[in-house]
Amino acid sequence: MKQDVYAVIFISTFSDTTEGYLEMVHQMEDLAKKQPGYLGIESARDKKGITISYWESLEAIKAWKQQSEHILAQKKGIKDWYSWYKVQICKVEREYEFLKS
Amino acid sequence: MKQDVYAVIFISTFSDTTEGYLEMVHQMEDLAKKQPGYLGIESARDKKGITISYWESLEAIKAWKQQSEHILAQKKGIKDWYSWYKVQICKVEREYEFLKS
Repeated sequence: MKQDVYAVIFISTFSDTTEGYLEMVHQMEDLAKKQPGYLGIESARDKKGITISYWESLEAIKAWKQQSEHILAQKKGIKDWYSWYKVQICKVEREYEFLKS
Repeated sequence: MKQDVYAVIFISTFSDTTEGYLEMVHQMEDLAKKQPGYLGIESARDKKGITISYWESLEAIKAWKQQSEHILAQKKGIKDWYSWYKVQICKVEREYEFLKS
């Protein structure tokens, strides 16, 4: 049976302070990889940042949101780094891929 | 009743040729905005590009995929610009937002 995949889309704009930001991003990526139900992550950043993490279930997403170090990172993000962000929890209905041969 | 929202996640890596790429991106964004069922677009680009477009229905997504100028752009993308891409069709289950006051 095909596995369910959920995507958490995180889109953000930045405030003037970016000190410590990239270190925290890398820490959180390393931490996310250790979470149960983690499937992968994609990100790109210019004026906005978009990060999409993939998970096996809504429960796995909820557990990651409530992970204690991640909570500290979220608070720091709100206090220092982000002027705006939006989070969207999505179910991946289907996907396809192209690879240049 | 709450409106359905579908997200098309498009993640890509680039080949060496980027001539004409940004012009085409802007043309396609302008064109997408005129499509029935279009709700919005977000994008960010560094080593990878991530573009997420939002739609009212799977039918609207299908119609956009088959729009004639968009088909030409897809072919040009495969021929010239992308070394890899992945498309994921998702249903947005819920979302929340933060805006710094």
